[in-house]
Amino acid sequence: MNSFGTLLRIHIFGESHGPSVGITIDGCPAGIPVPQADFLPDLERRKGGMQKGTTPRKEDDLPIFISGVFNERTTGAPLTMLFENNNTRSTDYDKLRSVPRPGHADFTASQKFGGYEDFRGGGHFSGRLTVCLVAAGIIAKKIMQVASGKISCVATIKEIGGEPDTEKGLQKAIDAKDSVGGIVECVTKNLPAGLGEPFFHSAESLISQLAFAIPAIKGIEFGAGFAAAKMFGTEHNDALLDASGTTATNHAGGIVGGITNGNDLIFRVAVKPTSSTPKEQQTYNLDTDKIEAFSVKGRHDLCIALRVPVILEAVTALVLADLLLLEQKVPRITQ
Amino acid sequence: MNSFGTLLRIHIFGESHGPSVGITIDGCPAGIPVPQADFLPDLERRKGGMQKGTTPRKEDDLPIFISGVFNERTTGAPLTMLFENNNTRSTDYDKLRSVPRPGHADFTASQKFGGYEDFRGGGHFSGRLTVCLVAAGIIAKKIMQVASGKISCVATIKEIGGEPDTEKGLQKAIDAKDSVGGIVECVTKNLPAGLGEPFFHSAESLISQLAFAIPAIKGIEFGAGFAAAKMFGTEHNDALLDASGTTATNHAGGIVGGITNGNDLIFRVAVKPTSSTPKEQQTYNLDTDKIEAFSVKGRHDLCIALRVPVILEAVTALVLADLLLLEQKVPRITQ
Amino acid sequence: MNSFGTLLRIHIFGESHGPSVGITIDGCPAGIPVPQADFLPDLERRKGGMQKGTTPRKEDDLPIFISGVFNERTTGAPLTMLFENNNTRSTDYDKLRSVPRPGHADFTASQKFGGYEDFRGGGHFSGRLTVCLVAAGIIAKKIMQVASGKISCVATIKEIGGEPDTEKGLQKAIDAKDSVGGIVECVTKNLPAGLGEPFFHSAESLISQLAFAIPAIKGIEFGAGFAAAKMFGTEHNDALLDASGTTATNHAGGIVGGITNGNDLIFRVAVKPTSSTPKEQQTYNLDTDKIEAFSVKGRHDLCIALRVPVILEAVTALVLADLLLLEQKVPRITQ
Amino acid sequence: MNSFGTLLRIHIFGESHGPSVGITIDGCPAGIPVPQADFLPDLERRKGGMQKGTTPRKEDDLPIFISGVFNERTTGAPLTMLFENNNTRSTDYDKLRSVPRPGHADFTASQKFGGYEDFRGGGHFSGRLTVCLVAAGIIAKKIMQVASGKISCVATIKEIGGEPDTEKGLQKAIDAKDSVGGIVECVTKNLPAGLGEPFFHSAESLISQLAFAIPAIKGIEFGAGFAAAKMFGTEHNDALLDASGTTATNHAGGIVGGITNGNDLIFRVAVKPTSSTPKEQQTYNLDTDKIEAFSVKGRHDLCIALRVPVILEAVTALVLADLLLLEQKVPRITQ
Repeated sequence: MNSFGTLLRIHIFGESHGPSVGITIDGCPAGIPVPQADFLPDLERRKGGMQKGTTPRKEDDLPIFISGVFNERTTGAPLTMLFENNNTRSTDYDKLRSVPRPGHADFTASQKFGGYEDFRGGGHFSGRLTVCLVAAGIIAKKIMQVASGKISCVATIKEIGGEPDTEKGLQKAIDAKDSVGGIVECVTKNLPAGLGEPFFHSAESLISQLAFAIPAIKGIEFGAGFAAAKMFGTEHNDALLDASGTTATNHAGGIVGGITNGNDLIFRVAVKPTSSTPKEQQTYNLDTDKIEAFSVKGRHDLCIALRVPVILEAVTALVLADLLLLEQKVPRITQ
Repeated sequence: MNSFGTLLRIHIFGESHGPSVGITIDGCPAGIPVPQADFLPDLERRKGGMQKGTTPRKEDDLPIFISGVFNERTTGAPLTMLFENNNTRSTDYDKLRSVPRPGHADFTASQKFGGYEDFRGGGHFSGRLTVCLVAAGIIAKKIMQVASGKISCVATIKEIGGEPDTEKGLQKAIDAKDSVGGIVECVTKNLPAGLGEPFFHSAESLISQLAFAIPAIKGIEFGAGFAAAKMFGTEHNDALLDASGTTATNHAGGIVGGITNGNDLIFRVAVKPTSSTPKEQQTYNLDTDKIEAFSVKGRHDLCIALRVPVILEAVTALVLADLLLLEQKVPRITQ
Repeated sequence: MNSFGTLLRIHIFGESHGPSVGITIDGCPAGIPVPQADFLPDLERRKGGMQKGTTPRKEDDLPIFISGVFNERTTGAPLTMLFENNNTRSTDYDKLRSVPRPGHADFTASQKFGGYEDFRGGGHFSGRLTVCLVAAGIIAKKIMQVASGKISCVATIKEIGGEPDTEKGLQKAIDAKDSVGGIVECVTKNLPAGLGEPFFHSAESLISQLAFAIPAIKGIEFGAGFAAAKMFGTEHNDALLDASGTTATNHAGGIVGGITNGNDLIFRVAVKPTSSTPKEQQTYNLDTDKIEAFSVKGRHDLCIALRVPVILEAVTALVLADLLLLEQKVPRITQ
Repeated sequence: MNSFGTLLRIHIFGESHGPSVGITIDGCPAGIPVPQADFLPDLERRKGGMQKGTTPRKEDDLPIFISGVFNERTTGAPLTMLFENNNTRSTDYDKLRSVPRPGHADFTASQKFGGYEDFRGGGHFSGRLTVCLVAAGIIAKKIMQVASGKISCVATIKEIGGEPDTEKGLQKAIDAKDSVGGIVECVTKNLPAGLGEPFFHSAESLISQLAFAIPAIKGIEFGAGFAAAKMFGTEHNDALLDASGTTATNHAGGIVGGITNGNDLIFRVAVKPTSSTPKEQQTYNLDTDKIEAFSVKGRHDLCIALRVPVILEAVTALVLADLLLLEQKVPRITQ
């Protein structure tokens, strides 16, 4: 179940404190150039240590290609990338076994896997694995470029702690010595009309499926989204202006009937505050059978939303590259 | 791509003005009683003609079992149900070919299927097909009962046109002679902890995938949802109170790390206003190459959100029944 | 699990003595002409009543299109076809409940489905459902034609009861008042090279998966097949003669490394004798707890292999149409 | 497409001359002990260098666990294993680019992947990847043991070069300085009845799908197999002797209607002679545009069938473990 996609299929694996995390991309077209250098900009954007509000943990996140790449190009065989976990301190986490951290998957993972889960640093549930999504997303973006050089996919932070001025929202959290949530918006331009399917594989269905794979996402809305629930039909409907599908407004967010209409594809996600907050919290101790005070000592982001844009772009690109392949919009590359 | 599910798999088919719409449920456990009478209450809830704001079109929506049922019980073989389309007036729709209706899939369907789509009444994109989802949902609810008689799944309207007083919201639309949107909330109680998977098959991922299969849904949020984006970590985190997973609050909506934690599973969806509104609109005429006034003559709901609760319960039950089967929580029935 | 395919997906349903059997084809390209008349030749080939050795049961096997067809062309939405079961005599089968027929699925179905299976006439396991495969195969053959008008797929009987002279083999069975097995060969010409995947979706893997879905098939071999096991490498290897892939011999049966090489794709299947034989047999009576004599009274084929060729073509076409779609060899049709 | 399975899903990757080959097992139950030592016996059986007729190439085939294992037990998260490729000589293969080796995937891979495939040593098509199947099979065998300690799965060589005396068959090849084919039989004992599905996921369908994933397999037959095609119905039918499903004979090979009946599950595969034979062959040179003499210099098995038994057990176990999970026959392990 750690897989996604119809033609472009990803399989994610790894734990926060295992030797590596990784991802296999199966169904990747042959002939796409994938020099390591092309991975750096997005991987840097995801990294901590660069901005106020993210953790100082530093990782050398270069993908190690295990398969599917030859002479710096994709071969068409499954492409597996690893990212080594060099910078972990297991001792930060060992005692947490008996103290499930609020907001984390410690309790649910233990219920699901009968106590055999790798609990160190959140294990397989760790945000660390999003490095794999970003790397796969870089390849997906390249596939989108093969379909059309005009397509772009850009996500930005719209709000932190309820403040459109993100600096101000972040400062609020720093002042409160607490973590804080935020809102991220993703806009994809110049997509062809016709991507997505009527029901269970609607563009919204697939994007939301992958968006909720990102830890900390708790809501998603397309176009006008929740605001649409307050509107009248004549306000909300996007009037068609010409035969190419241009509309006067874009309340639909570029998707009608589950299918892209050629307008900008726009959606926003709600990111909850980082579960690990420096402030003291209460939780239940499974050993002592008592509720006790608890505070996080490790290195953690104050605002996980700051890392989300590049991950959100990645999952969007993974969905859209698959849909472009399904509509035969990605021409074959041959030598 | 008109399929969903891992162990409990549904395949939907049909068009608004074809002979029937239908659904196949594959992987349904054998031995579940499915008398036709058990389908009536939920199918009635979905029907128009019963309340202010829904269309007077009446349908005799009894499922016709084609396969998978023997002596009124499921056999374990694929269960196919048809619903006949007796009450259609194609002439309402025929001239719309050249006038894509704003908010409808007319334009995107034509782009996707090269002009070969059955455009009558929205064809395969019609809300008519939700009768199949509701019927499949009834069987999914029965599977949940086999897992535990305590599980319940109930959706209710929380807002119409921005008004928590739904009567008032509806009257606003009637007065404006326009359609209007709304918000629906779904609560599932007494689920076991451990349902869902870490990433792409998280409980949120699967529920949102299916929720966006319902026409007119444009947003979804779990627990605190978009409000979480404005919260601090210590506000949002649900403190664990005992070894069974009880928490002081339920901001997570019953899902942590993609996996149910035993709390109430709570989410809300935003429903856009019905695209077909009695008020005059503008659209582009593909034949005359001109923008022209346009008004809908057919029978349509003022507020499609009124029909959504039972459909939302159905898709929630379809996801959860599948997850219960995956966790081996549904005991086999034998003669 | 009653589904097959990646881009062209089939979902089969129905029982021998239910109202209808049927199949849904999802992912069928839009715009393919499917007049009912085009289904008759292959459906006739499958029918009994036409040749020595097949049952006199006659069925009017016209497909009833429920969805996915508009103006006699595919729409791109799921295409569901039903075949009514008009000509059944349930009384032939009712008493068989306690007497599992040797060679039939009566015992295994009961074990699997806890006794809730529809046991009449073999239920979901009945050869009756192969009418759905043949009909889906006709559409698959049409998709192959869109890819290239030169592709042909023809299956023929090579042996009955060990006799290459099939008349003679059949007469042996008639004389013995017993049923008899046979061998059927399928040859597909003018396929492009490059269809199939290295491992689990090799052309052999997929064809054999579907071939064993045909009741009574117990073996399959590609090219030289079992004879290859007795050969030396220099005998077996097909020497390449030119840049287009022509080879001096075709011991590989047109598939190397799981992928078509442009040669004729050739394979053979072993068909066991019809399980229902007019001759008296022994079986166990679950009610009396005794072994008892048993003889089949219903209408049954002496040699089920006679019906297999058209079914084998159908499943081959279903696999190959899917592979052609995966390699983007089927151009889109637009109005 | 390099994936297989419904609940127990495998994803294979890697190339003969890349850094590693590997496999991810997703859906593996938590709590299964997987000490490295348990992998050695089967991995040794697969290795060359041990018996007449296999290549002297030696590999230290110890699995490196990247994920899904913690304290020597499975965690329930995806389990990824790598096998390093330490012992490769790329120079053996480089010049083969222009000389497609008869019987190998060189030509078809190039056609499929547009010339971008990693052609060194057969790349992703190499028999080297079967080490991954064997390792995954070891875990599948452990899952079968959790279901029942009585289940056993053993494959043996039945014939080499047409000789039941395998020493004699092998000597024939050595004398001829040629490679040679063989037949391998796999027997699984003490399976429960009820595994497999009626059509596309019949036990035969799934086993054959995976068996043909093994390079060099060109035929498969279950029970009486091709011999059944020559039999009468009363000869072939297995008479039921008691309520537990015991039969007087086992011509069906333990599968009726696609579903296991509790008898020994028996099948045989035909293995073609190793494509790389020391004897001189002819092939086409894409550079010179001429047919030329060609002989293999590298290290290769005379009879690849000698390595097949342990691989065949592995793929059989992978299918059956998945089917046992589907029938809820594998109890959960909890701490």
